[in-house]
Amino acid sequence: MKKKEAARITVEEKTGAALKTAIAPLVVKIEQVMRDDLSEATREMDELLEEVVHYGLFNGGKRIRPLLTLLCYRLCGGEQEAGPDIHRLALAFEYLHCATLFHDDVIDQATMRRGRPAVNIAYGQTAAILAGDFLHARSMLLVGREGGAAALEVFCEATAAMVDGEFLQLRNAGNSALNEEAYYAVIMGKTARLIGAACEIGALAGGAGQQGRQALRHYGLHLGCAFQIIDDLLDYLGDPAITGKEVGNDFCEGKLTLPLIMALNHMKGNDRQHVLSLLNGVVEERRQGVALVTAWIASHEGFTLAREKAEAMIATALSELESLASPANQTEVAILRLLAHFVLQRDK
Amino acid sequence: MKKKEAARITVEEKTGAALKTAIAPLVVKIEQVMRDDLSEATREMDELLEEVVHYGLFNGGKRIRPLLTLLCYRLCGGEQEAGPDIHRLALAFEYLHCATLFHDDVIDQATMRRGRPAVNIAYGQTAAILAGDFLHARSMLLVGREGGAAALEVFCEATAAMVDGEFLQLRNAGNSALNEEAYYAVIMGKTARLIGAACEIGALAGGAGQQGRQALRHYGLHLGCAFQIIDDLLDYLGDPAITGKEVGNDFCEGKLTLPLIMALNHMKGNDRQHVLSLLNGVVEERRQGVALVTAWIASHEGFTLAREKAEAMIATALSELESLASPANQTEVAILRLLAHFVLQRDK
Repeated sequence: MKKKEAARITVEEKTGAALKTAIAPLVVKIEQVMRDDLSEATREMDELLEEVVHYGLFNGGKRIRPLLTLLCYRLCGGEQEAGPDIHRLALAFEYLHCATLFHDDVIDQATMRRGRPAVNIAYGQTAAILAGDFLHARSMLLVGREGGAAALEVFCEATAAMVDGEFLQLRNAGNSALNEEAYYAVIMGKTARLIGAACEIGALAGGAGQQGRQALRHYGLHLGCAFQIIDDLLDYLGDPAITGKEVGNDFCEGKLTLPLIMALNHMKGNDRQHVLSLLNGVVEERRQGVALVTAWIASHEGFTLAREKAEAMIATALSELESLASPANQTEVAILRLLAHFVLQRDK
Repeated sequence: MKKKEAARITVEEKTGAALKTAIAPLVVKIEQVMRDDLSEATREMDELLEEVVHYGLFNGGKRIRPLLTLLCYRLCGGEQEAGPDIHRLALAFEYLHCATLFHDDVIDQATMRRGRPAVNIAYGQTAAILAGDFLHARSMLLVGREGGAAALEVFCEATAAMVDGEFLQLRNAGNSALNEEAYYAVIMGKTARLIGAACEIGALAGGAGQQGRQALRHYGLHLGCAFQIIDDLLDYLGDPAITGKEVGNDFCEGKLTLPLIMALNHMKGNDRQHVLSLLNGVVEERRQGVALVTAWIASHEGFTLAREKAEAMIATALSELESLASPANQTEVAILRLLAHFVLQRDK
């Protein structure tokens, strides 16, 4: 057992290191273009707005979404010299993602984000809402400008889906009848649609046909779902020292995520009743019950089953990717493959 | 004096009635297209989202912004049958305007909007932020789809200017050194730029050349500034029974608007010191001082001078408009003229 464990860690470390090496220059370029674009966009703007946007954007984020746009663009044969300004197009996804985080942190009254005060804490709620609106508008402008009408349609649909996912989650909070299907509807909207759009718009800009566009969209959707499932697992099982978040936040907020849904499907009698009454009760009782609920989920296979779902999602994402592999795009396919594997291995 | 007063009211009533008759069918059409568009946009969405958006949009608003787009389109020779779906393009301005109101009401913790609970009160802050984001995205989609890349540039610039104006206002709150110039910078961003964009994009879609586009943009900018100055006058002088708002809100929030800026320019000695200390003091003292400050502003000509500025703005707007008048567009010019006059006469 120990040997297997050790082997797994080595593979994980290798994947992580290989991925890091492969994407490092791309991330540097994305961040450089982001600085240029922001300085252009905020040239005649209030200095405080510029400061808030910088604070919120340069926070050690992994730039996964613009990376996906860039890689899918190249995978489909897009060339930096000929096509649209692909980096600016890619940026739109980081902007929209961050705009959503600013607003989410206001909504959740979050205090920390990536180990430091969230924008709403550092600069206040007003600044967080307005800076989110600013990035939102800028993201739409970049997509319309660099990607054209078709890209804007995909982008705006994904934005609407994000809002829809949040609304669904809002309605579902404390609803213990929530099933797997409803959970997937939420994470599709909240997370996967934007990641799918980042891939699809990269493909579109790179000149992909219908098949390439759809395969990469599906790659992104499955990657995004797996990503969110792992996020929801880490909410229970993550190491606060690594994730920077306390465990059991979702449960405390009355959010039913996949591990608990899977476990509830198997729980019977008193245990089930107790969990349901906690979900419909007051937040303080839930906070005290986190450790117990985590143990229940574990004993009812909730974590294992949820992880298996994430693994199945990644398998689908990989098979979509393989359908497009060719000698010409092996670099991009290799990185996107590493990225998919990494989603299952991340610990924060 | 009384005779003159009576005559003025009659003219005002006539302007109001003529305007109402002229725009009524256009407003009906705009609202019908809005219903259609929303039902299309929210077809696969959470029902609660749809409900919130409806609640926030159908609130007796005057639809000034889409009206301006529509009228400027026709004024420049745009025809309903040939061009883009001009009503959908026009709607974008109502969506963006309402999205901004949703977010502003969250920011200001407003309780009422147009005589009924604001969205953040009726459905909560989360719903208000998210529904605003949804309308924001939809507005960008409609502009990109119906107006093309050039329109999207203008629209996004106006959105960024709105955020910028709010930031400027945020920084200026309680800053008694605020001068006329800084005030205009705020209202340009907060109000006028979007109204200017509504006119300019209508002109652009209607096939206007550079001159027509610029004249209508300037018409809109000046109309918007005058509109905001009158708004700021009504904040002190409006009848709460008609405006639906208490008097002196801006002063209570520490916002320096044109009437007080004008009066401060003329105040000297103790009065000035007292007003400045109130502005930098606590909200409760300001609330108690509203009647006194209103009297001071009046005795230092603040209201008269501010009103004169609004009148000058409307005169400029009208002269921009006249530069485009021709026998072919006399209906549209007549309505836009009435609209400009009406801005000075509104009491809510």
